[in-house]
Amino acid sequence: VAKRLEKFKTTIFTQMSMLAIKHGAINLGQGFPNFDGPDFVKEAAIQAIKDGKNQYARGYGVPDFNNALAARFKKDTGLVIDPDKEVTVTSGCTEAIAATMLGLINPGDEVILFAPFYDSYEATLSMAGAKIKCITLRPPDFAVPIDELKSAISKNTRAILINTPHNPTGKMFTREELNTIASLCIENDVLVFMDEVYDKLAFEMDHISMASLPGMYERTVTMNSLGKTFSLTGWKIGWAIAPPHLTWGVRQAHSFLTFATSTPMQWAATVALRAPDSYFEELKRDYMAKKAILVQGLKDVGFKVFPSSGTYFVVVDHTPFGLENDIAFCEYLIKEVGVVAIPTSVFYLNPEDGKNLVRFTFCKDEETLRSAVERMKEKL
Amino acid sequence: VAKRLEKFKTTIFTQMSMLAIKHGAINLGQGFPNFDGPDFVKEAAIQAIKDGKNQYARGYGVPDFNNALAARFKKDTGLVIDPDKEVTVTSGCTEAIAATMLGLINPGDEVILFAPFYDSYEATLSMAGAKIKCITLRPPDFAVPIDELKSAISKNTRAILINTPHNPTGKMFTREELNTIASLCIENDVLVFMDEVYDKLAFEMDHISMASLPGMYERTVTMNSLGKTFSLTGWKIGWAIAPPHLTWGVRQAHSFLTFATSTPMQWAATVALRAPDSYFEELKRDYMAKKAILVQGLKDVGFKVFPSSGTYFVVVDHTPFGLENDIAFCEYLIKEVGVVAIPTSVFYLNPEDGKNLVRFTFCKDEETLRSAVERMKEKL
Ligand SMILES: CSCCC(=O)C(=O)O
Ligand SMILES: CSCCC(=O)C(=O)O
Repeated sequence: VAKRLEKFKTTIFTQMSMLAIKHGAINLGQGFPNFDGPDFVKEAAIQAIKDGKNQYARGYGVPDFNNALAARFKKDTGLVIDPDKEVTVTSGCTEAIAATMLGLINPGDEVILFAPFYDSYEATLSMAGAKIKCITLRPPDFAVPIDELKSAISKNTRAILINTPHNPTGKMFTREELNTIASLCIENDVLVFMDEVYDKLAFEMDHISMASLPGMYERTVTMNSLGKTFSLTGWKIGWAIAPPHLTWGVRQAHSFLTFATSTPMQWAATVALRAPDSYFEELKRDYMAKKAILVQGLKDVGFKVFPSSGTYFVVVDHTPFGLENDIAFCEYLIKEVGVVAIPTSVFYLNPEDGKNLVRFTFCKDEETLRSAVERMKEKL
Repeated sequence: VAKRLEKFKTTIFTQMSMLAIKHGAINLGQGFPNFDGPDFVKEAAIQAIKDGKNQYARGYGVPDFNNALAARFKKDTGLVIDPDKEVTVTSGCTEAIAATMLGLINPGDEVILFAPFYDSYEATLSMAGAKIKCITLRPPDFAVPIDELKSAISKNTRAILINTPHNPTGKMFTREELNTIASLCIENDVLVFMDEVYDKLAFEMDHISMASLPGMYERTVTMNSLGKTFSLTGWKIGWAIAPPHLTWGVRQAHSFLTFATSTPMQWAATVALRAPDSYFEELKRDYMAKKAILVQGLKDVGFKVFPSSGTYFVVVDHTPFGLENDIAFCEYLIKEVGVVAIPTSVFYLNPEDGKNLVRFTFCKDEETLRSAVERMKEKL
C-alpha cells in the first residue's frame, strides 16, 4: 500500500456493517435507510434504462441534470449559476470530496478540519499531500472555538472544510459561526469546502449554505448528493457546485478519477430534484418522529444524549455503562446486546478525543428503532 | 487547479463528443456504442431497483457480484481466487486505474507506460507523484521494443502498465511479448497493471491475461469493466482483481475515492456475467462485421489503415490528405466532412509522435459506419 494510505484502516462503516451481519445485530451504525427510496424516482431510473440512456454521460454530467442542479441551487441559495461551467456531477459526494482535494490542493497547503470529521476528508487530504490542522468541536454543544480557529489560520491555509448538518454530531453551524468563518476566509484568502449532504435533514434550525453569504460564492465548493435526501444511498450520485475557476480543478480530478457518472441514475436524479416541497416536508416529518423515538429511548436506557439539530445521527456519552472506551463499548453492544453503533474515535485525529462518544443513526423504520431500544433496555 | 493536474486539458473524448453534437457530425470518436445493451441485463437492473437493492453496497462490492467476478476470472485464466480478499468493485475501470495508482504507487516510484496510452494513466500517475517512463509502440505493427523496455527498467521501477487489446491501436500483446515482460518483472521485482477492458473484443488472436502466466498473478492488478463487453458504457461498473496484499492498497484508495459503487447496477452486472458463451460469440461476430465495413471503407477513402487485432478501434495514417497534423485533420474532418475521429497526439507524452495518426471507432451500427464512409468518400 502506498505511504499516503498506510495509516488508514478499513472504514469503520464497512467494519461495523459487516459485524452487524455476522452477529445478526440491529444496525444503527452506517447511515443507510432500511426503507426504500420513493417510487417516482425509482420509476424514472427504470424508464431511463428502458429508454436506452445507457452510454457514457457527458463527463461533468447529463445536461438536464446539470440544469436541474443549478435550478435547485437557485431555489436553495438565491444564486444564479451556469450549469455548464459551475456544476460537476460525481459518483457520490465521496467522489466530489476526493476530486475537490486532488483538484485544488497542493502538497504543503494547509486545510482546516473540524473534528469529529468524516474519515474520507483526512484520507483524501493525505492523497493530496495537504497538511491538516484540526479544530475540535466539544460537547455538549459542539460550538466552533473561534479563537482556536483564528490561530489555526496561517498564510499557508488554503481551505476550511465545513460539514453542516454535521456527521456524526448533528450539530448545525449557526449563522453567527458561518459569518465569522466567512470574514476570516475573505480576510485571509481561504476557500471553503462545504459538505452539505444532510441539508434537507435540518430539524431544529434552517440550513445555511456558506455559498449564500456575501462574497463567499466565489471561494466555496458546495458538495451534496442524492442519497440521504431520497433514501437511495446506493445510487452514488453526487455533485460539486463552484465558480468556474474552482470547478475547473474539480473537473480535472473528476475526469481521471471516474470520468463520468451512471447515466440512467442521472436521469432519475433529474426527476428527483423536481420533487414538490411536500416531499421534503414529509421526509422531515418522518425523520423527526424517528428521532424522537430514538432520542427518548436512548435517554431511558441511561445514556447522556447530546442535542442533534440535523442529519440522521445522534451522539451519546456511553460512560455510564462503565466500558473503557468507545470501541470497547461498541464491541460489547454488538456482541452482548445485539445493536450496532459507530465509535467516534475514528472521527478524530487524536482518537482519545472520541473515547466517550458513540453515534447512533435513526434512518431506520420505527419498529427497528423500538427493537433496538428494547434490546438496550434489557441488556445494558 | 492543483499543480498535479495543471498540464491536463478537458479530455479529448469529451471535447470531441461535444464537437460532434455541435456540428451534427457522425461520431466515430469516443468509444461508446450507438446501440443499446442486451435486454436481459437491463431487465436485471430494473428488477434490482424494484427489489429495493438501493442502499450502499459493501464498499468493495455486492457479495454476489464479487463471487461472479471470481468465477469469471477462473473461467478466463484458470486461477482460483478469494472473492472477499482479491476482488474490488469500482465505478468503472477508470476508477480502478485511479485506485491502483493512488493505492500502490509512492512519489518517486517509476512506472512504465507504452505510448500511445489512454490519458487517465498519465493523470493518475501524476496524482500519485510517480515518474513516468514511456516506451513508444511504432506503426505498422506496434511491437514492443524489448531493448528499450529493458533499458527503461531501473531499481526504482515499481510497475509496468499494459493495455491489451490496446486503445487506440487495436494491438494485442503477443504471448512472446508478455512472456518477456513477465520475466523482466520477476527478475526486477516489478508489478504489472493490466487494463483488459477490451478482452472480449479480441478478433485476430486470443486475449492473454498477464495474471495467467507463471509467477505473475501475485504481482498483477487485473482491471476490467462491464461497459465495452455489454454495450453499457454509461453504467460505470468496473473492477480490479489482485492478490490480497495488492488488493489492500487498491481498496484503501477506492474507499476514499468513491466508497462504493451503484448497488442495483452491481446486481445487474452479476446477471450479465452469467451470459452464455453464445452471447460473447455473437458480440464478436457483430463487431467483426462492423470492423470489415469500416476498415474497407477507410481503405477505399485512401487512408493507410494499420491492422487492429482487438478493441473497437482502428488507427489510420491521415497524411495522404495533406493536413499538417492529427489535430488539424480532425478539425477538418468534423467541419468539412461531418465525421468525428480522435487525434492520437493526446495519447503520447510527446504529441509529435502521434501527429500522423488518427483513431476511428466501429462501435456503431452498420448504417452509421456506411454513412461516415460515404461522407469521407465524397468530401475528403
Ligand atoms: C460511507 S458511509 C457514508 C456516511 C454515512 O452514511 C455514515 O457516516 O454512516
Ligand atoms: C472516457 S472514454 C473511455 C475510453 C473510450 O471509450 C475511448 O477511448 O474512446
